[in-house]
Amino acid sequence: MKVLVVGSNGQIGQRLIQLLKESKKHTVRAMVRKKEQADVYEKQGVETVLADLEGTLDSIAEAAKGCDAIVFTAGSGGRTGDDKTLLIDLDGAGKTIDAAEKAGIERFIMVSAIQANNRENWHDNILPYYAAKHYADRVLESSSLNYTIIRPGILLNESGTGKVSAAENITYGSIPREDVAHAILAALDEKHTYKRAFDLIAGDDLIDDALKKV
Amino acid sequence: MKVLVVGSNGQIGQRLIQLLKESKKHTVRAMVRKKEQADVYEKQGVETVLADLEGTLDSIAEAAKGCDAIVFTAGSGGRTGDDKTLLIDLDGAGKTIDAAEKAGIERFIMVSAIQANNRENWHDNILPYYAAKHYADRVLESSSLNYTIIRPGILLNESGTGKVSAAENITYGSIPREDVAHAILAALDEKHTYKRAFDLIAGDDLIDDALKKV
Repeated sequence: MKVLVVGSNGQIGQRLIQLLKESKKHTVRAMVRKKEQADVYEKQGVETVLADLEGTLDSIAEAAKGCDAIVFTAGSGGRTGDDKTLLIDLDGAGKTIDAAEKAGIERFIMVSAIQANNRENWHDNILPYYAAKHYADRVLESSSLNYTIIRPGILLNESGTGKVSAAENITYGSIPREDVAHAILAALDEKHTYKRAFDLIAGDDLIDDALKKV
Repeated sequence: MKVLVVGSNGQIGQRLIQLLKESKKHTVRAMVRKKEQADVYEKQGVETVLADLEGTLDSIAEAAKGCDAIVFTAGSGGRTGDDKTLLIDLDGAGKTIDAAEKAGIERFIMVSAIQANNRENWHDNILPYYAAKHYADRVLESSSLNYTIIRPGILLNESGTGKVSAAENITYGSIPREDVAHAILAALDEKHTYKRAFDLIAGDDLIDDALKKV
């Protein structure tokens, strides 16, 4: 599959791009917002496309054209206001979903947040962020796409272990970003993850085995 | 019908409560957040219930129990931050939709904003608000409810004329809040508005006639 990574400059996105670059099964196109970010990837031999999640649906559909799958791992981050939470985490995601439908790209992997589906378990200090993720996920579930929604626990920068726990309802946990990137890669053509949403934390199962259980 | 008005303390809500109070066809229950607001309505002989859109889904379902229809005309307003746009305009609406399904209340009228369905026509200075309204409407459209989404133009406080224009795609216009309240009242049991979404501005048609055309 040729995979468009939306949020290529993010911490999970960067790790995923390297994995896709080394993959024998897949190829990658990194979607980035700024020319400087594109230059860095181009120097590494990674195909890039410039597009902005605050731009038009058509510009995102155009950026995705020719790809077989889209991974949405973009986020406005903690340094901007909730206006950007609405425009990037919510509407940027919704626009990318709409663009996938428009461009005829069926496979879509969303990087969400642990328990985004269960309001009672949203983290108190980031409720607005959780609201945005919750509705982006619901829009994806209502779409015609062949989706997988991965809801990782608290993200860590330590090295991955290759071992995780994945299930429909895990209320609390953390996971290295490296393992999230590996899980995305493994999920791309893993049929057990099609039309599924699950929480993902560090655990005891090899990633490939964990994904077969969801 | 017994109608739960969510956002009873808002400018459209207040007008709608008075119309429902005078109606021979319908009765009303005003949902308000504060005891003081409830007291004002109770003194007027209006049934009230205390519930908070930032509360649980169950508390909203409980507040709605026994009603036949819900009108969502709540909004966080322009004085609060976009955290409240996410928690009230988006998630408060989503929770009310989920609560309606849970309580088995089929009829649901959403007060949205003109062209909330068309990103290219969102007003530049309130894009985050439009994003919240857009996704609240999409959640309603994906629900099992018998919905009507009314998307009024710029809201005015001048007296209503009783004459409007309603259609699937009106790009620009304004309308007195009084006419919006009248249109909600008329839409409650107007079958032509079931499972429909439309823009609404001041115009030349009597409200009853306009709603039959959508």
